[in-house]
Amino acid sequence: MNKIQKKNVQRHLITKAALLLTVLFLSVGCKEKTAKVASSSAVSNGNELNEAIKKAEPGDVIVLSNGVWKDVQIKFKAKGTKDRPITIKAETAGGVSIEGESYLKFAGEYLVVEGLHFKNGYSPSSSVIDFRIGENEIAYNCTVTNCVIEDFNQLHRDETDLWVQFWGRNNTLSNCYIAGKTNRGPTVRVNLEGIESMNNYHQIVNNHFGPRPRKGGASAETIQIGNSFTSMAPSYTMVANNLFEECNGEVEIISSKTNFNEFRGNVFYNSEGSLVTRHGNYCIIDGNYFINDSNNTNVGGIRIVNSGHWVTNNYFFNIKGASFRSALAVMNGIPKSPQNRYNQVTDVVVAYNTYVDCVSPWQFGVGTNIDQADVLPKSEIRSAKAIRTTVANNIIYNEVGDPAPVFEHDKADGVLFKSNVINNQGVEYKDFDGGIQTAPLELTKITDNIMLPTGVPSSVVPYQGFDFNTITKDLFGNSRDENNIVGASLKADVANPNILDKSKYGADWYSNIVEAKASTTHAVASVEELQQKIDAAKSGDVIALATGVYELDKSLKISKSITIQAPAEEKAQIIFSGAANAPVFELNPKGLLTLNNVVLQGNGENYAFATLKENMSNHFGLTVSNCEVSDFAYALRVYKEAFAESITFEKTAFDKCENGLELSEEINDKGDYNTEYLTITDCTFNAIKQNVVDYYRGGYDESTIGGNLLIANCTFTNSGSHEKNKTLLNHRGIVNVNIKDNTFKNNHVKFVSVLWGAKNNEHSNNTISSSGVIKVQENLEMKMMY
Amino acid sequence: MNKIQKKNVQRHLITKAALLLTVLFLSVGCKEKTAKVASSSAVSNGNELNEAIKKAEPGDVIVLSNGVWKDVQIKFKAKGTKDRPITIKAETAGGVSIEGESYLKFAGEYLVVEGLHFKNGYSPSSSVIDFRIGENEIAYNCTVTNCVIEDFNQLHRDETDLWVQFWGRNNTLSNCYIAGKTNRGPTVRVNLEGIESMNNYHQIVNNHFGPRPRKGGASAETIQIGNSFTSMAPSYTMVANNLFEECNGEVEIISSKTNFNEFRGNVFYNSEGSLVTRHGNYCIIDGNYFINDSNNTNVGGIRIVNSGHWVTNNYFFNIKGASFRSALAVMNGIPKSPQNRYNQVTDVVVAYNTYVDCVSPWQFGVGTNIDQADVLPKSEIRSAKAIRTTVANNIIYNEVGDPAPVFEHDKADGVLFKSNVINNQGVEYKDFDGGIQTAPLELTKITDNIMLPTGVPSSVVPYQGFDFNTITKDLFGNSRDENNIVGASLKADVANPNILDKSKYGADWYSNIVEAKASTTHAVASVEELQQKIDAAKSGDVIALATGVYELDKSLKISKSITIQAPAEEKAQIIFSGAANAPVFELNPKGLLTLNNVVLQGNGENYAFATLKENMSNHFGLTVSNCEVSDFAYALRVYKEAFAESITFEKTAFDKCENGLELSEEINDKGDYNTEYLTITDCTFNAIKQNVVDYYRGGYDESTIGGNLLIANCTFTNSGSHEKNKTLLNHRGIVNVNIKDNTFKNNHVKFVSVLWGAKNNEHSNNTISSSGVIKVQENLEMKMMY
Repeated sequence: MNKIQKKNVQRHLITKAALLLTVLFLSVGCKEKTAKVASSSAVSNGNELNEAIKKAEPGDVIVLSNGVWKDVQIKFKAKGTKDRPITIKAETAGGVSIEGESYLKFAGEYLVVEGLHFKNGYSPSSSVIDFRIGENEIAYNCTVTNCVIEDFNQLHRDETDLWVQFWGRNNTLSNCYIAGKTNRGPTVRVNLEGIESMNNYHQIVNNHFGPRPRKGGASAETIQIGNSFTSMAPSYTMVANNLFEECNGEVEIISSKTNFNEFRGNVFYNSEGSLVTRHGNYCIIDGNYFINDSNNTNVGGIRIVNSGHWVTNNYFFNIKGASFRSALAVMNGIPKSPQNRYNQVTDVVVAYNTYVDCVSPWQFGVGTNIDQADVLPKSEIRSAKAIRTTVANNIIYNEVGDPAPVFEHDKADGVLFKSNVINNQGVEYKDFDGGIQTAPLELTKITDNIMLPTGVPSSVVPYQGFDFNTITKDLFGNSRDENNIVGASLKADVANPNILDKSKYGADWYSNIVEAKASTTHAVASVEELQQKIDAAKSGDVIALATGVYELDKSLKISKSITIQAPAEEKAQIIFSGAANAPVFELNPKGLLTLNNVVLQGNGENYAFATLKENMSNHFGLTVSNCEVSDFAYALRVYKEAFAESITFEKTAFDKCENGLELSEEINDKGDYNTEYLTITDCTFNAIKQNVVDYYRGGYDESTIGGNLLIANCTFTNSGSHEKNKTLLNHRGIVNVNIKDNTFKNNHVKFVSVLWGAKNNEHSNNTISSSGVIKVQENLEMKMMY
Repeated sequence: MNKIQKKNVQRHLITKAALLLTVLFLSVGCKEKTAKVASSSAVSNGNELNEAIKKAEPGDVIVLSNGVWKDVQIKFKAKGTKDRPITIKAETAGGVSIEGESYLKFAGEYLVVEGLHFKNGYSPSSSVIDFRIGENEIAYNCTVTNCVIEDFNQLHRDETDLWVQFWGRNNTLSNCYIAGKTNRGPTVRVNLEGIESMNNYHQIVNNHFGPRPRKGGASAETIQIGNSFTSMAPSYTMVANNLFEECNGEVEIISSKTNFNEFRGNVFYNSEGSLVTRHGNYCIIDGNYFINDSNNTNVGGIRIVNSGHWVTNNYFFNIKGASFRSALAVMNGIPKSPQNRYNQVTDVVVAYNTYVDCVSPWQFGVGTNIDQADVLPKSEIRSAKAIRTTVANNIIYNEVGDPAPVFEHDKADGVLFKSNVINNQGVEYKDFDGGIQTAPLELTKITDNIMLPTGVPSSVVPYQGFDFNTITKDLFGNSRDENNIVGASLKADVANPNILDKSKYGADWYSNIVEAKASTTHAVASVEELQQKIDAAKSGDVIALATGVYELDKSLKISKSITIQAPAEEKAQIIFSGAANAPVFELNPKGLLTLNNVVLQGNGENYAFATLKENMSNHFGLTVSNCEVSDFAYALRVYKEAFAESITFEKTAFDKCENGLELSEEINDKGDYNTEYLTITDCTFNAIKQNVVDYYRGGYDESTIGGNLLIANCTFTNSGSHEKNKTLLNHRGIVNVNIKDNTFKNNHVKFVSVLWGAKNNEHSNNTISSSGVIKVQENLEMKMMY
C-alpha cells in the first residue's frame, strides 16, 4: 500500500563538530589496513539472524530477506568499529516488514540497522527500538536509519511504551518515518539515568515525524529528552532537520528536560503543540520553522521554562495559539520550585527571530495562577516572573494590526526589549521603552508560508548583548559578520528552501502522501447485505441504505472510515434486537463512522453506538446527522481507553433511553478523556433517564488544554430523573465548554450544568424552566497529578 | 607585626586546558608588535590613583606609594589586553595597607592588583574586593594576587558582606592570605546571576585561607560558588592548590552550588567543616588532602548532595567527624526537592581515595529525617537514598578496628561497592557483597599526617567502571596507565609533598606564623593601676592582682587576650559601684579574659561581665575559675551579635543575682547563637532569680551543629523564682546539651530543663529535690529558615 519511491536524500551536516569528527574518522579509516574482507550473510528467520549476530565481526553486513517477519525480537549485541560498523539491513530497503510482537534492541558499539518497516504489531517490551538490552548492556555509536514505524500501538491506550528509546551515547536516529502513535508515552525518548547516558550527543536528524493524533491527555510527546529527575544532567542531544507534521499528541511536541540540547533547522508544520524547554537549561533553538496553514489555534511555537536558553533565527508563520501555545510563551515559575514543577525563567535570549501574522506572538507570565491560591498548595503557585531575559533584534510583521504583540499574563518587567521592529499596520501597542519600534516593513513571498519582511530602516542597529557575537549566521546560513540586520533572515532574495518537500526527510523508500481517490457507493437494500458490504468497502466508501426497515440482530462492526446513509426525504430504519449491552454499531480501532438519515430503535437493553470494551489500539470517530435514536440502554457508550478525535451529533433526536452519551470512564485522574471534541447541535433529548451527557476529565494538569464540549441549539425535556448527582449535563474537568441557545424544560435535576469558571467554560442564551439552574464554580478541587 | 618574608611561590598549572591557553596567548603575544612602551606611574593618594586609572592604557603599571591608605574606595575600570594587562601594585609588596572604609572593585578586562594589605577596617559596600562595579560594569580576565585581607570585619555580625566577590568570567584570586572573618557571609563568593557570569572559569588558586573562627550560626563558608537559585548554571570554577587552615566558620568550608566546578590539590587542615556539593552537579574533587591533627570531631571531609560528582584520589587522615562531618558523607535527598533544599544523590563516583584512621569514613543516608515527619512538612523529609552511585578502588586503613567503616543512617542499597580494600585489624564489618575486602595493609610514614597504606594484594584488580579511564593519575600525579592499583597513591616511596609548608600558599611577603613568646606579668596593687596596666599589657600577658579589696567605679575594658589573677590562697576582691547596667569587665572585640581567684561584688543593678552592646566586630572569650560573683543584675550579659568561641565557668559561686548567665538575644531564628561552647563545671548558683542559664538558638537548620552546653557537678539552690517559663536551665534550640552530676534543690520552677530528644541532648546522674523535673521532648517545632 505504501509506494516505494526513490528519493534524493540529503543528510545535512549538523555541526562543525560532526564534520570534524567525520573527517577524523575517514582519515583514521584510510590509515588502517583492512585485515579481513567483511562478510555479508543473508538470513531469513529469527534463528538465523540470532546466529549471524553472534558471529558478527566488524564490517559485517547481515541481510534480512524480503517479506513479513512476524514476532521477531531482535537483540543486536555486537561490537563494530568506527570505520567498520556491523550492519543489519533489509534485502531491499522497506522490503522487510516487522510485524506482530516485535522489537529491536541494541547493545555494543558501531551497529547500524537500515530499511526495516515496523507495522501491524506492537512491542511486547517497553519500546519498539531500544538503545540498550539491559542496565549493563548499553549501545554506543549505534544508528537506526531509513526505517519506518507506523501504527505500532499497544492494544491499550494506557499501556505506556516508547517507539524509540535512547540510552548510552552517540546514537543516531536518522531518515526514519515515524507516525501514528495513539497510546501513552512519548514517541521518542532520550533517557539519561546513569553516567553511561549523560553527555550523550545523540543525533535525531532528517526524520519525518508524521501525524501523531491527539491522545486526549498527557504523555504523548513526539520527543522527550530526559525527565525531571535527570533534569540536571548534561545531555547535548541534537535534534536537527526533522519535519514534524501534525504531531498533535499533546501540548508538547518536543519536551526538552535536560541541558545543552540543540534544536536546529527543524520544521514544525501544522503541529498542535510547542517545542518546550520543560526542564533543564541552556538549550539552543536556532533556525527552525513553525508553520501553521490554517486558523487552528492549537498550533504553537516555543514555550520557555528554566534558564539560559537561546532562541535565535527562527521563523514563525501564522501561529494563532494563545498562552501555552503562543509563538513564544515565556512561563512564570514557582519560587523555589519542586524538582518536577516549574523553575523560574532566567538568563534567556530571544534574538533575530521573525514572526509573520502571529497573534500576540510574545506572551509572558504564561501559566500564572496567583489567583488559584485558594485551591492549590503554595508549591503550585507560578508567581515568579522571567528575569534577566533579553528579547532583541526580532521582527514582527502583522497583516492585520495586533493590539497586543506582547501579551502580559504577568508583567514582563524583568525582560529587556531592544532593537525589535514591527509593522503593526498603525495599530497602537506597548513598546517597552522603545524596545519595539515601528517600521514600514513589507513582505516578500518566498512560498505560501514563507514571507520575509523587508525594509528595516538602517537606523535600527542590532543590539549587541553579551555573547551575541556567538550568533554568527542567519536562518539561511548567511554570515552575520557584515551588514547584519535584525530578523531571522539577512535578505529576502533567497531560494525557496522547500521545507515541506517530504522527500527531504524520513526513509527514502516511503512516502506518506496518499493520492486522493473517489469514494465508491455500495447500495444496500437488505439487512443480510449490510455487514457484508461494510466489510467489502474500502476506507472512505459510502453505504447507501435503501429506505425501509432493517431488522438487525447482530452488531455492525466498523473498523474503517465509512459513511452509512439513507435518503434524506425518507429515512431508513434499523430495529435492533441484539443482546443486552450489544451496540448497533460496534466502533473498532480506526472505525470512523458517519451516519445520516437513519432511525435506530433498540430494545431498551442494548446500545445504539459503542466502542470495543478493550483493545482500542487506535482511535475511532463518529458523526451522526439527521437520525433518531430511541429505546436503548445507552445511546453512546465509550469505554475506558477508547478515544475519538471528534464525536458529533447534529439534528438528531434521542428518546426513551436509560443513558444518553456516556464518555466518563477515564477516572484514573491522570488527565485523560475520551474525545477531543464532543459537539452536539440542533438535537433533542427526551426521556433520557441519566448520563444525558457525561464527559469527564480528571486530574490537576495545567498543560492539558482539552476536551471541548459544545452543546448548542438543543432541547432537553423530561430527562435526568435517575441522575444521582442531580446534574443534567456532566462535564467535570473538561477545559472548554460552551452551552448556548438551548432549551431545558421539565428535567428533574438541580443543575443543568456546573461550569468551571477558571477555565474556558461558558454559557449563554439558554431557556430554562423546571430544570434547575446553571451554576458557575470558579475553582474545582482536582487531584494533583504530579 | 607581620614579618615580611620572601617565599618560593609555586604556581601550578591547573589543567591541560590552562596550559594550552597559556601557550596560545604567548604565541599570540609574540606575533603582536609592541606599539607603545608601557608607563609606570607612582601615585600617593586616592585622587591621583583615580586619575591614573582614568588614563591607563594596556601595559601600564600604577604604583601605590608605601604607607597607610585610609578610606580608599578603588574603582579599577580599565581595559588591558591579554599580553598587556594594566596593573595596580604596591610600591613594595605588602607595603601598602588599605584601612578604614575601603574596597576594591574591578570592571573591564585584563586588570591586575598586587601586593595590597587590607586591615584595620571594613568595606562600606557589600564586599571588600568585587569583580564588578555595577550590573553593567563587570570584570573579565582580571586578577588579584599576592594580597592579604585580615580581620576586615563589619562592625555587626549580622551585617552580611563578602571579602571577595566574583562576577564575570576568567577572573583569578591567587596567592592571597585571607583570614579572620567573623561577620555573616561567605569569605569568597562566586556569583552566577546573568549570562556574563556563567561558564566563568574563575581560578581560586594557591591561596592561604587562614583561620576563620566559628561564627555561631550559618552563612560563614570560606568559599561559596553560586546559590540555589543559580544552581542550574554551568560554572567551571577552579579551586586548586589552596591551603585551608582552621576554616571553622560553619559546617561548610566550601559550598559548591553550581555545576562543573573543580577542586584539586587543596589541603584542608584542622578545618571544622567539609567540602560540600550543596547544590549543582558534576563537580570534580580530585587529589585533595583532608587532615585532622587532633581528636576534634568537627573536622570533616567531603559531603555529597546532588548528581554526577567524581571524588577521586583524595587523602583523608584522622577524620573523626560523624554524620554531616564524616570523611565521606552522602546525604539523603528530598523526593522532588524544592530548589533550595536537598536533591537526591545520583550517579556519583567515589574512587581511588585513601582513608587513614578515620571513624566510619563512609556514611550514607546522612540527614535522613524520616522520623521527623510529625513536625516537618513533607517537602523537608529527606527520604531519597543515593542511587546509581559507585564506591570503588578505595583504601581504608584503621590503626584501631572500626565496627562500621560504612555507617548507614539509611540503607546504602543504591550504592555499588567494588574493589575496596581495608585493614580493619581483624574487626568484623559489613562488606557489601565483597565490595570491601580485607587485606594485610601496612602504613608507610611520609610525614606525621601522611601515612600511605601499602600491601594491596595483586589479586585486587581495580574496578573499571564507566568512564573510569578518565582517572588517569594518582594523588601525586603519577600515571595510572600501567601497574594501576587501588587507593589514592600508586606507591609509598614518594617525596614528602610538604603540604603544610605555608610558604607555598598565600602572599609571598606575609606569614601567619606567630613566634611563641613568653608572657609578661604585671603586678597590680591598687585600683588606679588596674585599667592602666591592662591597657599597657600585650596580648597574652598576665595581670597579677595583689590580695586585697579593690573599690572600682568604672568598667574595665578588655580588648586583648589577658589573664587577671590573684593568689589562690587568698582571693582579691573587687567591689563594683559602677552605674546600673555597667559591667565590671567590659568585653570588647578580641577581648579574651581569663579570671582566677577573684571575688566580684556588685550593687544589685550593675553587671559582672558583659560584652559591648553593639559593634562587636570580632569575637570575645571568657574563662572564670575559682571566683565568687554576687549582687549583680546580671552575672553575664552577652548582647545580640556578640560571639565567643567558648565561655567557661569553673569552681565559681554565683549568689544573689537577678539574672545569671544570659546568652539569649539571637532571636532572629536564623540559626545564630552567642557562644559555641558554654561550659559550667563545679559551680554553685544560689538565689539567682531568673535566667540562671539562658542560652538560645532558633530556626530549623539541619546543618547547624552547635552550640554546646555542658553543666556538670554544679549545685543550684533557691533559684528561678522570677523565671516566667518556670524552667531553671533554658537552652532551647541548642544542639548539644549535657546536664550531669548536678544537684538541684529548692528551686521554684516546674522544669529543671527541657531537653531536645531528637538532637544530642542528654542528662544523667542529677539529684533533684523540690525543683521540678527534667523533661525530654523528642521534637521541637522550630521556625523554618529556608
